Amino acid sequence: MSQPIQFALTQADIPTHWYNILADFPAPLPLPLHPATKEPVPPEALTAIFPENLVMQEMCPDRWIEIPEPVREIYARWRPTPLLRATRFEEALQTPAHIYYKHEGVSPAGSHKPNTAVAQAYFNKLAGTKRLATETGAGQWGSALSMACRLFGLDCTVYMVKVSFHQKPYRRLLMETWGATVFASPSEQTNYGRKVLQESPDCPGSLGIAISEAIEDTVTHPQTKYSLGSVLNHVCLHQTVIGQEAMKQMEMAGEEPDAIIGCAGGGSNFSGLAFPFLGKKITGGKNYRIVAVEPSACPSMTKGEYRYDFGDTAQTTPLLKMYTLGSDFMPPPIHAGGLRYHGMSPAVSHALNLGLIEAEAYHQTKVFESATLFARCEGVVPAPETAHALHAAVQEAIRAREAGQKRVILFNFSGHGLLDLTAYESYLAGKLLDV
Amino acid sequence: MSQPIQFALTQADIPTHWYNILADFPAPLPLPLHPATKEPVPPEALTAIFPENLVMQEMCPDRWIEIPEPVREIYARWRPTPLLRATRFEEALQTPAHIYYKHEGVSPAGSHKPNTAVAQAYFNKLAGTKRLATETGAGQWGSALSMACRLFGLDCTVYMVKVSFHQKPYRRLLMETWGATVFASPSEQTNYGRKVLQESPDCPGSLGIAISEAIEDTVTHPQTKYSLGSVLNHVCLHQTVIGQEAMKQMEMAGEEPDAIIGCAGGGSNFSGLAFPFLGKKITGGKNYRIVAVEPSACPSMTKGEYRYDFGDTAQTTPLLKMYTLGSDFMPPPIHAGGLRYHGMSPAVSHALNLGLIEAEAYHQTKVFESATLFARCEGVVPAPETAHALHAAVQEAIRAREAGQKRVILFNFSGHGLLDLTAYESYLAGKLLDV
Repeated sequence: MSQPIQFALTQADIPTHWYNILADFPAPLPLPLHPATKEPVPPEALTAIFPENLVMQEMCPDRWIEIPEPVREIYARWRPTPLLRATRFEEALQTPAHIYYKHEGVSPAGSHKPNTAVAQAYFNKLAGTKRLATETGAGQWGSALSMACRLFGLDCTVYMVKVSFHQKPYRRLLMETWGATVFASPSEQTNYGRKVLQESPDCPGSLGIAISEAIEDTVTHPQTKYSLGSVLNHVCLHQTVIGQEAMKQMEMAGEEPDAIIGCAGGGSNFSGLAFPFLGKKITGGKNYRIVAVEPSACPSMTKGEYRYDFGDTAQTTPLLKMYTLGSDFMPPPIHAGGLRYHGMSPAVSHALNLGLIEAEAYHQTKVFESATLFARCEGVVPAPETAHALHAAVQEAIRAREAGQKRVILFNFSGHGLLDLTAYESYLAGKLLDV
Repeated sequence: MSQPIQFALTQADIPTHWYNILADFPAPLPLPLHPATKEPVPPEALTAIFPENLVMQEMCPDRWIEIPEPVREIYARWRPTPLLRATRFEEALQTPAHIYYKHEGVSPAGSHKPNTAVAQAYFNKLAGTKRLATETGAGQWGSALSMACRLFGLDCTVYMVKVSFHQKPYRRLLMETWGATVFASPSEQTNYGRKVLQESPDCPGSLGIAISEAIEDTVTHPQTKYSLGSVLNHVCLHQTVIGQEAMKQMEMAGEEPDAIIGCAGGGSNFSGLAFPFLGKKITGGKNYRIVAVEPSACPSMTKGEYRYDFGDTAQTTPLLKMYTLGSDFMPPPIHAGGLRYHGMSPAVSHALNLGLIEAEAYHQTKVFESATLFARCEGVVPAPETAHALHAAVQEAIRAREAGQKRVILFNFSGHGLLDLTAYESYLAGKLLDV
């Protein structure tokens, strides 16, 4: 075939190690602080909610951390994921740019989230945990953890942000098919949930509230640990298989990206693709343009402050240094539920603050316009979150067209939108809230 | 990694030709007959509803038919599909059998259907068609054709069996996202649909009725052709990329299958996997056990008669020699909407009648039990249709366990069930109709 479309790796190419950006940051990452003492939180303080092996990983300074064999064996069900060139999309945009996407939507859960879910379930199993509690926005994370828990024989309870619980009933069904228990958050299951409902019975929920509920559930149940699908260092770490594979695949394509783009809610898929490239950039490689994309409706990086803040709404977590809209920020009910988080991964925030990466924000109507065009050119339907990255790639491709320059663009196709089709229905009917 | 799980091919391995079983059948396939004259239907009679290039392909005796470059270029978005070994599922079944599955669920539409949808849209485009009309059961075919039409700039109208239209709203949304127009069948759009509704206002619909509506739509609209997602020779032909790839991948795995299994509604995914192996069996290769699996609720092969019958309920098609329950058979509303067809591909029927393949039928509750176990072992959630093939593979694996024999089982994972999750909801709630 004349036109190379896909760049395929084999099982033997699944990375053997996760890449830890902490080893290469030019300035150290600000540590999490205890809210009362304002002193760095000691590892012991975190083991109330996380198993010790993951706490150690969270704070580990090593550049490379070995991926355990049982985790790689599960990765082999869908990894390495394809890297594809969106040639038909390029034609539709009439751009000289080359647009590549790393297709994480081929996982059984439909997104990049199983990369860390499987790792976290494995390390919890090893530590003797019997049950995991977590929160989920659009349900990508909750479904990934439900699957991973089942694979390692753990029970799983998911607090799903209420607006998504109703917008995306199939994601709940998917979690239940894998055997998880799912509650709409704010729920009647926790003190904090009941308090929120009392004050605001129609509260659509937020990731911050759901995190508070999952943490309360964790500390009030035996043999239960908490699991987070984004934000933290060990989560971003587990996602770096994406970027490592993409780097090999771009070599196969014979090109180096000029721009590397991912959407960012808590920051995990963005860092998964970007951090291996960022490491190369820091240590003297190419000066990539690296862009984290967020919704205008929840603009932590572009409109938030860089300061210490709580990770959840009930203010039960340690203080994290991050771009934040405030832990009580209530985002509008946009369809990209996974991007409705008031804060941002401390590692991503640090990179942004150091000027190593950039941030952009877009309104959802234009985002869905790009996503629909993409689906109609390339076939695959992007998740609403993914569509933000894709839309930023379109802007880059249009600039390339206007400048008459070839640019190589790589974006993370973090998940498919098959369980988010009501969002497309709203868009096609002209009923999308343009926030 | 010690355990090989996946057997990956590259873009260069996408087959260059489709394999035509007609060239290798030990006895000629009975021809379609004109209902009035009972004489073989001449090619000209079919061009009212199909473009000439596809009619020629339908009757072509050549063993190999070249796949046009633009079709292969679109295939390259998701083909070759993975072959995976279900090691965790084997362990759960405590079987010495090796269970392999060819994962067609990775296509943008989530099933094997785009293999022929893309080909049919391409040949129609070439022939000057502006619009395609079709029917769909569960929506796998309708969504595949909607996507393919959009890729080649054709309009698309889909008559979706009413019970599935309501059971599977996301498949309708998917078709609309790709720009198609979708009607619940029986509909008010056609004379035949109106007639059915008058006689039976609550009619849940069937593939036979929807086919009649799509054909009527075709002959009453300009520049419109009809497109069928199964049954016919050219459809089975286009699907043979599946078996050709699987053959290469089984070689990579260093094993030859003993049993080759696919579910069969109209017969397209079954023949896609099985026919290349069947050709080898006929021409002196291994004596594979080849099994077509159907629901007990619609048992054309196991309870039907082998005779000439109409392909649709309004009796507008030529007579096809096939296993049939009668063109007026109304199957119960099982979740495997793609298997609710009264007849069976003439080529599959011929192979069954010649004793070259076998047929099995199963009740849906046991089928979902196997499917849920599979999802909880391997991650990926099977479509209800696919679950029938999977359940037959389980029976084979259990027999291997009981005999203490290693058997190599290969089944076609024809599609994922992410848009069929309400079926799993019913199963988990114990509310599945056990037909």
